[in-house]
Amino acid sequence: MANQSQNLDGLFHALSDATRRAIVMRLSEGPASVTELSRPFEMAMPTLLQHIRVLEDSGLIGTEKVGRVRTCEIKQKAFEATQSWLERQRGIWERRLDRMEAYAASLQAKEYNHGRRKNKR
Amino acid sequence: MANQSQNLDGLFHALSDATRRAIVMRLSEGPASVTELSRPFEMAMPTLLQHIRVLEDSGLIGTEKVGRVRTCEIKQKAFEATQSWLERQRGIWERRLDRMEAYAASLQAKEYNHGRRKNKR
Repeated sequence: MANQSQNLDGLFHALSDATRRAIVMRLSEGPASVTELSRPFEMAMPTLLQHIRVLEDSGLIGTEKVGRVRTCEIKQKAFEATQSWLERQRGIWERRLDRMEAYAASLQAKEYNHGRRKNKR
Repeated sequence: MANQSQNLDGLFHALSDATRRAIVMRLSEGPASVTELSRPFEMAMPTLLQHIRVLEDSGLIGTEKVGRVRTCEIKQKAFEATQSWLERQRGIWERRLDRMEAYAASLQAKEYNHGRRKNKR
């Protein structure tokens, strides 16, 4: 549980930067080498590599070096962990809103019936 | 667009801390005062208030002070922004995986047909 929480810290932290989100967006379309990833960014290579390391440490992406080429790819499982956390919270408050709506409807129905009884007298 | 990106920075940053996620989880169940929120945490009030401020700045929660009581509640819209960003990325790679599967299936079918033709000769 503590581990899972630390993972979520790292996952959400990794996503809290526009450059890292852009890397994730590019990798959603398929694996890419570090050189390919660097092209759209006007950024020194060490800075880019630092972002890639943060993403790798979080588990959002994996990298593999063959010869001189390091290839990055997205890791679906880590991504799903962030999504399922968000979905769980949303589920809780949506059920709460549903209960509130049902309660409001029951109050309205009571008032309506009360009004009808009054008119009948 | 730049604004939206800054918002996402703040939203994901707000979610990258276990205490702040616990506050969000509590508020998913309904609004709560700062005093109520402080109960499960063994934490100095200024530290808790700092976490609440980060959540408020990100737009994930709203707070309202009436008399001496500050009440916090979740803001669904900000929450949905993080979810829709994640869903968009997932959509992109799921479509890619579908295309890859279709391609693999077409290769298999070709091989099968090729094998059948060979056997017929």
